Amino acid sequence: MLEDKNQSRTSLSELGEFGLINHLTKHFTIQHQSTIKGVGDDAAVLDKSELQTLITTDLLVEGIHFDLSYMPLKHLGYKSVMVNLSDVYAMNGSAEQITVSIAVSNRFSLEAIEELYAGIQLACNTYKVDLIGGDTTSSNTGIVISVTAIGKVKKEDVVYRNGAKETDLIVVSGDLGGAYLGLQVLEREKQVFKVNPNNQPNLEDYMYIIERQLKPEARKDIPRLLKELEVKPTSMIDISDGLSSELLHICNQSKVGCKIYEDKIPLDPQVISTCEEFDIDSTMVALSGGEDYELLFTISIDDYDKIKGNPHLTVIGHITEEVTGLKLVTRANQELELKAQGWNSFTEGKN
Amino acid sequence: MLEDKNQSRTSLSELGEFGLINHLTKHFTIQHQSTIKGVGDDAAVLDKSELQTLITTDLLVEGIHFDLSYMPLKHLGYKSVMVNLSDVYAMNGSAEQITVSIAVSNRFSLEAIEELYAGIQLACNTYKVDLIGGDTTSSNTGIVISVTAIGKVKKEDVVYRNGAKETDLIVVSGDLGGAYLGLQVLEREKQVFKVNPNNQPNLEDYMYIIERQLKPEARKDIPRLLKELEVKPTSMIDISDGLSSELLHICNQSKVGCKIYEDKIPLDPQVISTCEEFDIDSTMVALSGGEDYELLFTISIDDYDKIKGNPHLTVIGHITEEVTGLKLVTRANQELELKAQGWNSFTEGKN
Repeated sequence: MLEDKNQSRTSLSELGEFGLINHLTKHFTIQHQSTIKGVGDDAAVLDKSELQTLITTDLLVEGIHFDLSYMPLKHLGYKSVMVNLSDVYAMNGSAEQITVSIAVSNRFSLEAIEELYAGIQLACNTYKVDLIGGDTTSSNTGIVISVTAIGKVKKEDVVYRNGAKETDLIVVSGDLGGAYLGLQVLEREKQVFKVNPNNQPNLEDYMYIIERQLKPEARKDIPRLLKELEVKPTSMIDISDGLSSELLHICNQSKVGCKIYEDKIPLDPQVISTCEEFDIDSTMVALSGGEDYELLFTISIDDYDKIKGNPHLTVIGHITEEVTGLKLVTRANQELELKAQGWNSFTEGKN
Repeated sequence: MLEDKNQSRTSLSELGEFGLINHLTKHFTIQHQSTIKGVGDDAAVLDKSELQTLITTDLLVEGIHFDLSYMPLKHLGYKSVMVNLSDVYAMNGSAEQITVSIAVSNRFSLEAIEELYAGIQLACNTYKVDLIGGDTTSSNTGIVISVTAIGKVKKEDVVYRNGAKETDLIVVSGDLGGAYLGLQVLEREKQVFKVNPNNQPNLEDYMYIIERQLKPEARKDIPRLLKELEVKPTSMIDISDGLSSELLHICNQSKVGCKIYEDKIPLDPQVISTCEEFDIDSTMVALSGGEDYELLFTISIDDYDKIKGNPHLTVIGHITEEVTGLKLVTRANQELELKAQGWNSFTEGKN
């Protein structure tokens, strides 16, 4: 499928660890004045600031979080930055710096790692963040990527998971379920390819959902949009594990319940058609699929008019008192208990 | 040897990812007022500060950086924090927070991971740093630990690698070579144990060097000591890869050369006796051994009287002009070229 056809192959040991770091990071430029010292010393140095600092980190492991038989390394680099920036935006902040550490086996050539860093660089340029440090080392098998993102937020702007109040509206950005379905399509094509390597996949009908899986975009625009609309969410979280799981986090931490409506959950037409093709329930996909990296937040009902009709935002329900629990109201007007069935790396996959 | 004899074994999947994070971090307490929000949201939140922020990160991979057949998990947790704090101290700063991410295979029980976190907690309590976040996930093989440390430093106090000037004195804290030799002893005992598992190792004569390997301490005291002595180093780096490699970094970045004296390199008597036993050159061990986590720094010759006779500090040479290169003056008064032969994970070990 998307195998690396690049024939040139330089061994990582030819450069050594410091040579490798220098080689990989030399084309990165520093964009923030707050980055006083980036790569190249014992630690990076960031300037003092009147703002609060946000720190978040994620680990991506080959065979658990991604499969290189359909995930190009450049996309993997891009995505590994996105999943971290998304967490910064979910605090209503702006991302300014990242560190990237990788452990790679000798299966990977220098050219392969350059591809990974090309994706990281594209993410840095597009999202205006500085690569300020990291670590490169070998591993016995596969590749592990650890990214830490550093952001800034005004004290009065920071949004936690624990501020949702009864009657608040529940809002999501964009649409849900695409990333999970894109993965299903890629998994299917991988099986087809295994049987007949000459079979060229026709992925035209799935471009949107495949892009959602391979090249997700963190919602940098949402904190800015909310600022423009003069709306401060009462709680916010990014949707990495599926809508149910994230709602559970907000409700648990805010000590509230919620009611969401099946017919309000935003779905792309390609998600609906592909769900029909795969004979799976699109609501289930939106609730449990994960990896969409949209933002889920709650706002005061008084702010409804400010967001009404905004094409990026959909109200899917409202916060209730804690005793009523988490409820999904189906299209048939049935009330179902919402359970978190988000992705758990310890029970799924080849662990 | 140091195998875990603990018979109780809880599968990680029983808790799930969020349950696991909560379980592992619930006994950690926040010690810094600057930590506004630690574990439990999309990102940690740190308060604004008049100081500059230091960020550093390291990745430790099983089979590359450690061998669990003689590295107890509690020590591994402790050491994984030390290697990062050491980088903060090498900037002349103070460490305040860490994030810890782990990827573990299902070979590890909950009880094993609890041991790892007990070591992390001991490090946090001893060094007064807050655990503020991280990620836990599964891996297909082995364990990977990624730690990011966050520190603070006054703008006028920060020390880079690039400030060394001709005639500056070169100083190291503590003594060198112990960690590498401790590893050699542990490797030898592992081989003995393989042949006869009933053979109980007698490690009494090697306690200091084994502790240097298994439970290194980052030199938090040195930045404070230098402040008390009213000495600001002109350059500084921590000794993680061996004295030669670190000197090369300082000389390269400062565009200077250096001359160090073999008979000045501080060695513990146990290092000398064990080198004799293993028939290896103790100077070579100090130059290339690594993992001592001492600090290497340069000071103006005008500050010599302030540090003279301090039991923690040893002057081992001085900075020269760049063209003279990096020189070791042997006990026989010969001048040898210093080469960085520090540890390179891409060429050594089972990569």
